[in-house]
Amino acid sequence: MDKVKVAVLGATGLVGQKFIQLLNNHPWFEVVAVTASERNVGKKYGEAVSWYHEGGIPEYVRDLVLRRSNPEEVPGDVEYVFSALPRSVAQEVEPLFAKKGFKVISNAGAFRMDSDVPLIIPEINWDHIELINVQRRRRGWSGAIVKNSNCTTAILVLSLKPLVDYFGVRRVIVTTMQALSGAGYRGVPSMAIIDNIIPYIEGEEWKVENEGLKILGKLSGDHVEYADIKISATTTRVPTLYGHLESVHVELKNKPKSLDEIVDAMREFEGIPQKLKLPLAPEKPVLVVSDPDRPQPRLDRNAGKGMAVVVGRISWASNIGDNWVKYVVLGHNLVRGAAGNTILIAEAMHRLGVD
Amino acid sequence: MDKVKVAVLGATGLVGQKFIQLLNNHPWFEVVAVTASERNVGKKYGEAVSWYHEGGIPEYVRDLVLRRSNPEEVPGDVEYVFSALPRSVAQEVEPLFAKKGFKVISNAGAFRMDSDVPLIIPEINWDHIELINVQRRRRGWSGAIVKNSNCTTAILVLSLKPLVDYFGVRRVIVTTMQALSGAGYRGVPSMAIIDNIIPYIEGEEWKVENEGLKILGKLSGDHVEYADIKISATTTRVPTLYGHLESVHVELKNKPKSLDEIVDAMREFEGIPQKLKLPLAPEKPVLVVSDPDRPQPRLDRNAGKGMAVVVGRISWASNIGDNWVKYVVLGHNLVRGAAGNTILIAEAMHRLGVD
Amino acid sequence: MDKVKVAVLGATGLVGQKFIQLLNNHPWFEVVAVTASERNVGKKYGEAVSWYHEGGIPEYVRDLVLRRSNPEEVPGDVEYVFSALPRSVAQEVEPLFAKKGFKVISNAGAFRMDSDVPLIIPEINWDHIELINVQRRRRGWSGAIVKNSNCTTAILVLSLKPLVDYFGVRRVIVTTMQALSGAGYRGVPSMAIIDNIIPYIEGEEWKVENEGLKILGKLSGDHVEYADIKISATTTRVPTLYGHLESVHVELKNKPKSLDEIVDAMREFEGIPQKLKLPLAPEKPVLVVSDPDRPQPRLDRNAGKGMAVVVGRISWASNIGDNWVKYVVLGHNLVRGAAGNTILIAEAMHRLGVD
Amino acid sequence: MDKVKVAVLGATGLVGQKFIQLLNNHPWFEVVAVTASERNVGKKYGEAVSWYHEGGIPEYVRDLVLRRSNPEEVPGDVEYVFSALPRSVAQEVEPLFAKKGFKVISNAGAFRMDSDVPLIIPEINWDHIELINVQRRRRGWSGAIVKNSNCTTAILVLSLKPLVDYFGVRRVIVTTMQALSGAGYRGVPSMAIIDNIIPYIEGEEWKVENEGLKILGKLSGDHVEYADIKISATTTRVPTLYGHLESVHVELKNKPKSLDEIVDAMREFEGIPQKLKLPLAPEKPVLVVSDPDRPQPRLDRNAGKGMAVVVGRISWASNIGDNWVKYVVLGHNLVRGAAGNTILIAEAMHRLGVD
Repeated sequence: MDKVKVAVLGATGLVGQKFIQLLNNHPWFEVVAVTASERNVGKKYGEAVSWYHEGGIPEYVRDLVLRRSNPEEVPGDVEYVFSALPRSVAQEVEPLFAKKGFKVISNAGAFRMDSDVPLIIPEINWDHIELINVQRRRRGWSGAIVKNSNCTTAILVLSLKPLVDYFGVRRVIVTTMQALSGAGYRGVPSMAIIDNIIPYIEGEEWKVENEGLKILGKLSGDHVEYADIKISATTTRVPTLYGHLESVHVELKNKPKSLDEIVDAMREFEGIPQKLKLPLAPEKPVLVVSDPDRPQPRLDRNAGKGMAVVVGRISWASNIGDNWVKYVVLGHNLVRGAAGNTILIAEAMHRLGVD
Repeated sequence: MDKVKVAVLGATGLVGQKFIQLLNNHPWFEVVAVTASERNVGKKYGEAVSWYHEGGIPEYVRDLVLRRSNPEEVPGDVEYVFSALPRSVAQEVEPLFAKKGFKVISNAGAFRMDSDVPLIIPEINWDHIELINVQRRRRGWSGAIVKNSNCTTAILVLSLKPLVDYFGVRRVIVTTMQALSGAGYRGVPSMAIIDNIIPYIEGEEWKVENEGLKILGKLSGDHVEYADIKISATTTRVPTLYGHLESVHVELKNKPKSLDEIVDAMREFEGIPQKLKLPLAPEKPVLVVSDPDRPQPRLDRNAGKGMAVVVGRISWASNIGDNWVKYVVLGHNLVRGAAGNTILIAEAMHRLGVD
Repeated sequence: MDKVKVAVLGATGLVGQKFIQLLNNHPWFEVVAVTASERNVGKKYGEAVSWYHEGGIPEYVRDLVLRRSNPEEVPGDVEYVFSALPRSVAQEVEPLFAKKGFKVISNAGAFRMDSDVPLIIPEINWDHIELINVQRRRRGWSGAIVKNSNCTTAILVLSLKPLVDYFGVRRVIVTTMQALSGAGYRGVPSMAIIDNIIPYIEGEEWKVENEGLKILGKLSGDHVEYADIKISATTTRVPTLYGHLESVHVELKNKPKSLDEIVDAMREFEGIPQKLKLPLAPEKPVLVVSDPDRPQPRLDRNAGKGMAVVVGRISWASNIGDNWVKYVVLGHNLVRGAAGNTILIAEAMHRLGVD
Repeated sequence: MDKVKVAVLGATGLVGQKFIQLLNNHPWFEVVAVTASERNVGKKYGEAVSWYHEGGIPEYVRDLVLRRSNPEEVPGDVEYVFSALPRSVAQEVEPLFAKKGFKVISNAGAFRMDSDVPLIIPEINWDHIELINVQRRRRGWSGAIVKNSNCTTAILVLSLKPLVDYFGVRRVIVTTMQALSGAGYRGVPSMAIIDNIIPYIEGEEWKVENEGLKILGKLSGDHVEYADIKISATTTRVPTLYGHLESVHVELKNKPKSLDEIVDAMREFEGIPQKLKLPLAPEKPVLVVSDPDRPQPRLDRNAGKGMAVVVGRISWASNIGDNWVKYVVLGHNLVRGAAGNTILIAEAMHRLGVD
């Protein structure tokens, strides 16, 4: 059977390359078009790209010619357009693609918080996909824009969702230790980070404090009612390559009888991707480890092929209140936090015939 | 004028070497005795030590012969005995020194929480030094044991003290990113930490959650009434050499009118060491920086020659409550967090004639 | 068909774990016994081991009970005994295993340069395996000891062999940049190597300068005539996790017409493992890359699943003489440089019926 | 007495900042003008610069207003113009400064190998300063351009000079492990170098193989006769912040009786800066250490305040020939390798009245 045709916008950057990697030998999708910035247009992907990942450039993409990030240049039979564009470019061109009828599944920051744009982690809020009907109606598009959240948010929210469901969550305090790849290949100079930490990532804390409320929110007619959770975040950059680690304190609405209830809630959690056995779906989206010194970025970031988040050190924080617990959570920022989750959205759309 | 004679117990380890370094050319103190573990006893310091710090071994110590950590082997005219012993050894020998009449000023974990042992950061709770009288009475010692806190605690508590004084502090949530030197020279294998973080340090969280309450407590007759503050800590190890960074959320009792009030409270804070202009006293114990990406371990750990802590990113955390603020604080774990603070205690004792 | 039974001595160390990993789902071999040092004897592997590698402990080994490194404790039907023992232990127990009839294929340093002990890289000097007959005759053993070379040597010599064959090699000057894992998990403290290089590895230079001469030597009756090549090495430790990089200058006996002749010689090189398509054999043992900034440890160490070495930057060093060329070569120190090559030897023995 | 006025061109980059730092409280020189690229012209230094070094911006420079790198904008009474410009800018503007009468002492690559431009390490070839007379005659300049060599070259050549003088040097093979700061602050992305080495630095090997021959050459009328030494270099980038380490093999013309002769030759070596006790002159330009695992970048790069190079591991390389020795040498790439050596040249000019 013929594969579904897809395109990757911004295919030569760090996230773009991760799309290319994850779509290599994908059982349903076939990359037929790749785009890049002006100076690379017209070149073969294999010649234009500085390939950053282990394992080298997948063969299939080597000879694809780079196009402009422009709907006129992408074949009309492309079903899903994956966007790894920088925010400012995305802002401009993603609507053009949607208007032309393409379904844009995007990792870019632009439009995430627009009320008619679904912001989706398939295990959590697949039903928000309905918003594309509102979006089409309002904007007069035949295509659509669907968004992936910020990487740090995705990892945090996956660990929170079981707590929300079982115990209710009132407040969350999180300090992140984020990998260098989150800033793009040239984002953090080596001189800035060897033997060092940078306790600041521009714009990141607002995203972590807000995007999750939409994802955990309830679809209500033409918009999402944000979850009534209060999040405060401090985000830092540390000298790791991949894998965001987050130290989390949570105030629950209802106190669990034991920590095991939390462990069980996390371990049992699953969603649409698991039920449908989507190609990129991890067996379990949340893994819980009991060794006291885990999860660790280098050892655990590839759990579930980078699509699972790993939770450890679950314990009471009863010093500060009866209903407080704390834990750490780790996820692969380029896979579950970016390209992987984006593709997972498309897999769910395809499988469920969202058109 | 003759200098005051001092000894350093456990002088060849990472903290011991920092004592040796900070006591080089000290205006008041002169190291006349150094001790080490059995296999090095009898050797010259310069031959036995693997010197880890930049700048090489200070000349003065090179030919001192290493002794046993035993009061019989330390000259009777030594006034202050600085202890950088491992906890288990300290547990055993520090009382022997105190019994024999020595004033032991110690960085070791043992005895810190004993009710008759002062646990001191001179800027904060110098008055607790009175406890040595209780200690002597109870234990029948002519000497005394005075303790330095855990490194992470010292850094945190220095930043909290101005808040306690001006606004009152109810709850503290802290996530630490601690340098490798905190675990000793051989504590963390390189294979464990390159491109990695370890979200766990054994026993550390309890210390951070409890030692500070004693330091911030009020002397009341023969003991300290612990401060009524609730602290919850998650402690992690990161690939930096020196300088513990801590991400702090604080619930204040009284809401400041503006963040500037907090900045001012921190900047104006000072104590006995500043008033007496003690040799190791930093001009200000708490520095506040306004660049959004500071403090950073490599750039700021030597502020005030390692004796100041540096606070940055002070902001409201009003998402989670009206009275919540957040900030990050950095301090040099081997200086203010260990050898430096310990010497500062002795300087205050000497200058004020505590005998 | 039943698999061949094998044992791993010293199975919990860094190299031991790599054996366990590479033997997971091996098509011919099945691990039936694992040994460790005294304090772990009797424990289950999965409980005793601190597993250092990504991906977790292979299931098959989790419940194997750790035994003493003693031939009495290893089942008699074990065909190959892989040794990852420390040198001093190997020195003592490997002969006991050989005496008892076991074929010991060993990564330990002991005995490597004994004249009746084959030191083998299967692509290069498979014929040296004949020495086990000399060994048995002399030592009265029914088993045998076969050795893997030092990791740095293995990587260097694989790159030299095609040059020896095509052009002859007179002199070699090599500076190595060796990964931390080469020193074992606890070998290099993080405090020693972050933002640093250690220009010294004890005993290593002698090995690089001598072991290769035996491997490249010619079997002559009851011994190997060492290759007439002069090697001078400077070995250093750098902050990488896996993959030894070596900067090589070579004086050839005969000048190639062009650098392409060297590239071709390397690319065409293959040996017994390739001809027999042994399970761990890489398609090509020597890969040549043309990007000027490759090979790089993190990007290239897993080439050929860690069994290939990667050569780059081949160029004339004609400044210092007409026949001089230079290049850099990289190999995975724990795979081709240790466990992988050792298993490859056993694969060749098994396939060719060396008994 | 009034200080000599100096300017720093390109004062905000990594090398420019090192000039600013080394000129802080300089006993003879006073910085009165600083220049930067167009977008910073008109701003105060303290506001425009991203200060990268420990210890913060020196007070004296904070309020200096940044000017264009243009001789019209630099006060006429400036005596020395230090250039930390990028090569391409230097190429264009340094001649304009020289023409206008300024003495440009420059770290930039441009013009280094021009026959009438002195390329100077004051300890080695101070007499080459005479070339400025040829330069002025030929080019009709009233000022002059004097050059500092490439950082890697400077470090190597300082270690070679005593060997050249005592034993003669025929061939040199060097592999370098160069610090990140050598590429400028943004030169090497952290993603490129954590857990990695890059075995290539563009253009560097040619410089190392050639610049040294000029420095070690003999002044002969209107030009320098290059030294008859053959150098072959492989240059690599490693994850250290400061300090280039170089592994050197040298073929001497005459064999020393013992290695001690080499040690003595290096230790006794000194030049004009030592004789004149210039402010930045280290007591000894070449230090020799005997611990087998030294020099190490982090521990030794600040030897002689960064102006000394440190040599270790001196040994025979007699495997490859009777007259071969090997050693490793380390130097601070931004101090002796850049700003420090450049200032040292000006100090010598000033002290000796070169006008």
